[in-house]
Amino acid sequence: MQLESIIDQIAPLDDPAMEAARARQDALTKPTGSLGRLEALSIRLAGVFGQPTPEIRHKVVLTMAGDHGVVDEGVSAYPRQVTALMVDNFLRGGAAINVLARHVGARVVVVDMGVAAELALKADLVVKKVAPGTANIARGPAMSREQALQALTAGADVVEAELERGLDILGIGEMGIGNTTPSAAIAAALMGCPPHDLVGRGTGVDDDGLTRKALAVQRALSVNRPDPADALDVLAKVGGFEIGGMAGAMLAAAAHRRPVVVDGFISTAAAMIAVGLAPQVRPYLIAAHCSQERGHRAMLDWLDMEPLLDLDMRLGEGTGAALAISLAEAACRILREMATFEDAGIPGKME
Amino acid sequence: MQLESIIDQIAPLDDPAMEAARARQDALTKPTGSLGRLEALSIRLAGVFGQPTPEIRHKVVLTMAGDHGVVDEGVSAYPRQVTALMVDNFLRGGAAINVLARHVGARVVVVDMGVAAELALKADLVVKKVAPGTANIARGPAMSREQALQALTAGADVVEAELERGLDILGIGEMGIGNTTPSAAIAAALMGCPPHDLVGRGTGVDDDGLTRKALAVQRALSVNRPDPADALDVLAKVGGFEIGGMAGAMLAAAAHRRPVVVDGFISTAAAMIAVGLAPQVRPYLIAAHCSQERGHRAMLDWLDMEPLLDLDMRLGEGTGAALAISLAEAACRILREMATFEDAGIPGKME
Repeated sequence: MQLESIIDQIAPLDDPAMEAARARQDALTKPTGSLGRLEALSIRLAGVFGQPTPEIRHKVVLTMAGDHGVVDEGVSAYPRQVTALMVDNFLRGGAAINVLARHVGARVVVVDMGVAAELALKADLVVKKVAPGTANIARGPAMSREQALQALTAGADVVEAELERGLDILGIGEMGIGNTTPSAAIAAALMGCPPHDLVGRGTGVDDDGLTRKALAVQRALSVNRPDPADALDVLAKVGGFEIGGMAGAMLAAAAHRRPVVVDGFISTAAAMIAVGLAPQVRPYLIAAHCSQERGHRAMLDWLDMEPLLDLDMRLGEGTGAALAISLAEAACRILREMATFEDAGIPGKME
Repeated sequence: MQLESIIDQIAPLDDPAMEAARARQDALTKPTGSLGRLEALSIRLAGVFGQPTPEIRHKVVLTMAGDHGVVDEGVSAYPRQVTALMVDNFLRGGAAINVLARHVGARVVVVDMGVAAELALKADLVVKKVAPGTANIARGPAMSREQALQALTAGADVVEAELERGLDILGIGEMGIGNTTPSAAIAAALMGCPPHDLVGRGTGVDDDGLTRKALAVQRALSVNRPDPADALDVLAKVGGFEIGGMAGAMLAAAAHRRPVVVDGFISTAAAMIAVGLAPQVRPYLIAAHCSQERGHRAMLDWLDMEPLLDLDMRLGEGTGAALAISLAEAACRILREMATFEDAGIPGKME
C-alpha cells in the first residue's frame, strides 16, 4: 500500500471507548486509581482499539535487521558479520528476544531489511532487503530517498501480512551492528541538539570508540545536512533500512488501530521518524522501557512518552518490548476480568 | 515448626552457584550486562536456589487477610466489613490479584489470619485466624506477644504446606482495611523516624482522615513504646495478624531456599519485621515495586532493596508481586534458555 494512504488511515483514539473504560476502572473492586499506570494504559488501549474492554490475544514482536556502512568508522564493539549471525540465532530460537517472547506468549517475526550478507533462506525469515547495508553516513547519505520510502513501505507490508495471521499488539525491535550511531544522528537532527548528548556506548565501545562515534555522528550531520522538517529526508540521509522498516510498521499498526510497543534507543529513533511523518501516530505508541543507552531518556521526553520499565537494559531486539507487552496485556485483563463493586456486593468508599 | 529452628535454617546465598550463573550470563549471545537488572536478578536467584540455572515452575501468591482495631480511629476510607467481602471476592476470582496471578501463571492462596467476621468456609480458604481483628493500637497493644508468635508460626506453616504442593517462588500480599496504619507504625518504630513521613492516604483518605491517621500512629507509638531492637515486640505492640503471617511466610520460604517477592507498603512492613527477626533473610527478598503510598521508598531504602517496577500502584493484595514474579521467571529463563556465543558460532566482542 502507498505510505500516504496508510498515514491517512491513522485516526485519533476513540473517546467514547476511553470514557467507558475509565468508568469501568472506577467501578472495579479496588480503590480508585490504585492500579496506577496499568489503569491509564488500559484506558489508552481502549482508545486504540476503539473498544471499551479490549482483548489482547495475538502478540507479535518484529525484529528488523540491517547493516550500516558507518561501521567502517570504528563505532561498534562487534564486527559487522555479527548482524547476520544474530539473525541466524533469532531463527534458531537462541537469542534473548526468543526467550522473552516465549515467556510472554508472543511470536517473533524476523525481517531482513538490509543485512550485508546473503542469509541462508529460512522459512521463518521475512526478506525485505532494500540493499546489503547502508552507505557510510559519515561520508554521504545512508540511502536514496526512494530507498527510504521503500524501507517504510516494506515495514508496513510486514504488518499487513502479520495482521492476516492475527496481531493484537506489536512490539518493535531490531538488530544491526552499528545502529546506535544512525539512531543518535536521527535524534540529533530532529531534536536539534548536540550529538554528544545522544551518543552512548551501544554494545559497549571503549572511550576511543565513543569518541569516534561522536565524531561520526557529527560528520553525518555536517556532510548530509538532514532537514529536520522532513523526516523522510532524515531517514534517507542518516538512517538505516531497519529503522525505516520499524517506522513503517508503526504507521501501519496505528492505521489498523493496533498498539505499538516501542523497545529501546533505536526503536525510539524509528518512532521519531514515524511521528515526524505522521504526528497522529503518537498515541498509538507505548514506550517499553528506558534504556541504559545515553540519550534515550531525552528522546522519550522529546516524544512525550513515559516508559513503563526501567531495568537498565540496553540489548534491543525487542527485549524490552516483550516485557512491556505483558504489562499491556495485564492492563487489558484487569479491565475485562475484574469484578465490579456491584458484582461483588461490596459497598464503595465512605463519603 | 518452631520459629527459632526456621530462622536457624536460613543460610547465606550460594556463592558457587552465583559465580556459575555470572559466568554463564557473560557467555550468552548479548553484549555483557546488556540485560541489566534481569541479569543481576538471575544471579541472585541462582544463589537463592543454590543452582546455577534455576527453573521457576510453581508460582504462588499468598494473600493474607486481617482486621485492625485502629479502624475505630477513622483511619480508612472504607468500612471494616470490606475486608471479609474482599476475601470472598478473592475466593471467587474477581479481584485484581486473581486476574494478575492468572496472567503470570501463579496460584493465589488466601489466608484468614485474623478477619473480624466468620467467613463462610470455602474449600480454597486457609484459616489461620489468630483472633477476629487486632485491638486498637492507638489505645494499647495490637496483640499479645504469644499471638504475635502464633501469627509468625502460622505464616510459616502455610508456606510449609504450599511447598508440598509445589512452590518455586513466593509472592507476598495482603488485604486488611486499615492496615497501612500499623504498617506505618512498624516502620516508624524500627526506623526511628517521625510518623508523619510514613503516613499516606492508603485506600484514599481525605485530608482529615490523613490527620487522624498520623495522630493514631503517633499515639500507637507513645502508648505502646515498641522496642525497635525487638521485632517481635514491635509486631505485638503495633502490628497486625496478617503482617505477622507475612513475616513468618518470608522466613519459612528463605529457610527452604525459595525467593520471596515482597509486594508493597504493608508487605514491606512485614519484611522489616522478618529482617528484624533474622537479618540473613534479606537477600531472599525481592522488592516488587515502589508503591505510590508515602513512605514506601524510605522503607525500601532502609531495607536496602531496589524495587523492580514503579507503576504508581498502591493496591496491595500481592498485585505488584504477581507482576514482578513474571520478571523473576523471565530472568531465570534467560539464564537457562539463551544460546552462548560458542553454541551459536558467533565471535565475541572485538578487543
